Amino acid sequence: MKVIIAGANGQIGKQVVELLQSSGEHTPIAMVRKQEQADAFAEKGIETVLADLEGTVSDLENAVKGSDAIVFTAGSGGSTGSDKTLLIDLDGAGKLIEAAKQTGVKRFVMVSALQAHNRENWNEQLLPYYAAKHYADKELERSGLDYTIVRPGGLLNEPGTGKVSAAENLERGSIPREDVAKVIAASLAENHTFKKSFDLISGDTPIEEAIRSI
Amino acid sequence: MKVIIAGANGQIGKQVVELLQSSGEHTPIAMVRKQEQADAFAEKGIETVLADLEGTVSDLENAVKGSDAIVFTAGSGGSTGSDKTLLIDLDGAGKLIEAAKQTGVKRFVMVSALQAHNRENWNEQLLPYYAAKHYADKELERSGLDYTIVRPGGLLNEPGTGKVSAAENLERGSIPREDVAKVIAASLAENHTFKKSFDLISGDTPIEEAIRSI
Repeated sequence: MKVIIAGANGQIGKQVVELLQSSGEHTPIAMVRKQEQADAFAEKGIETVLADLEGTVSDLENAVKGSDAIVFTAGSGGSTGSDKTLLIDLDGAGKLIEAAKQTGVKRFVMVSALQAHNRENWNEQLLPYYAAKHYADKELERSGLDYTIVRPGGLLNEPGTGKVSAAENLERGSIPREDVAKVIAASLAENHTFKKSFDLISGDTPIEEAIRSI
Repeated sequence: MKVIIAGANGQIGKQVVELLQSSGEHTPIAMVRKQEQADAFAEKGIETVLADLEGTVSDLENAVKGSDAIVFTAGSGGSTGSDKTLLIDLDGAGKLIEAAKQTGVKRFVMVSALQAHNRENWNEQLLPYYAAKHYADKELERSGLDYTIVRPGGLLNEPGTGKVSAAENLERGSIPREDVAKVIAASLAENHTFKKSFDLISGDTPIEEAIRSI
C-alpha cells in the first residue's frame, strides 16, 4: 500500500515512516509542510509530498490522491496554544478526512488519545486538547471510511517492547512511541481493525495478537 | 413552549429571554452559571436554572429535562482564549446536544456564524472560532434533533429593523443583535425552520416572511 503519513516529521510519524519503509510491504509517503523536511526524507530514499494541514481541502486532495491509506499522526504540539489545536488537531484532521473521501482513499488510521471518547476520563490538564481529539475522532467514525482510531496512553521515548494492551476502554497507562508506531504499521492491512477505535498502553500481548483480538 | 436559553446572560441571550417573556407564547428559562445572574433574572419574574456548559452532560440533562426547546447562544467571548472556545463553543454545545437527546428535548436552535459551513469564507481573524462553530454545527445537524442553525453576520448593538435577509449562503454583512433574537424567537415554533441552517444579515424582508421562505 502507498501510505501517506500526515505528521511524518513528528515523533511518532518518523517512526511510522521508517517502519513502513523497512517493511517491504508498504510505501510510505511523508507528508510535510517544509521543503527542508522533504529533503531530509528524500535523502533516506523516502517519497514525500508537500502539504499543509492549515491549507485547503483541495490542496490535501492533491496530496493524498492515488494513495491507498492515510495515517494522521499530526498534532500542533504542546508549545502552541489552542488556536492551533483547533486548526490542526481538529480542523486539519477534518479536512484530511474530507480529502480522503473526495479522492477515494478508503483507509484512514488516526492517532488519538486514551479515553478521548469518554469525557469523564479526560486528562484535566489537557481538556481543550481532548475536546479537539474527541470531535476529530467523531468526524472519522462518521466518515464511512475504513478507519482505525488508536488512542494511546502517555507517550514515552524509551524503546518499544512489542507488547501492548489494546481494548475499547483501559485504565490510564503509558506506552513507548515506538510501540504506537508498530501498532499503526501492523493495523494498516489488518481488516479486523477496520471501523474500530481502541485505547492502547503497554501490556503483555504481542502487537499482532492484540490488534486481532480487539 | 418552555424554552431553555443557554447563554441567557449574553448580549443576544438577554434579548431572547425578554422577547419570549413578553410574547405570551413561550416561557423562557434562563440557564446561567452564577446565582447572582439567576437572581437578576428572577427579579424580573423570569425562571432560571443554574448549569455550567463546562460541567457534565448529566448536569445539563438535569437542567434541560422537562423543557420543550433549547436555544444555544452561549459563547466564550472574545476575551478568553481558544481553550474556552474548545470547551464552551464546541464541547459545551456538544454536551448540550447530548443532553437534549438523552432527555427527549427535540427542538434546538443554535446561534452560529455567517458561513461557518464554508471554510473558504471564514473570517481570517477568527479562524479558530469558526472551526469550533463549524464542528458544533455539524454535531447538531447529525443529532436527529429538530434543529435550526442561525448563522448571523457581524453583530451590531443598534436597534433592530425587523427586516432581514436569510438564505443558505449570503455575502458578508451585519445585523443588529435584536434582529437575531427576533429570528430565534420567531423560528422556535415555525416548523418550516426545522432541520434548516441559514445565513442571516439585515435585509428587506420581514422576519416572519424571511424564515418561512428559507
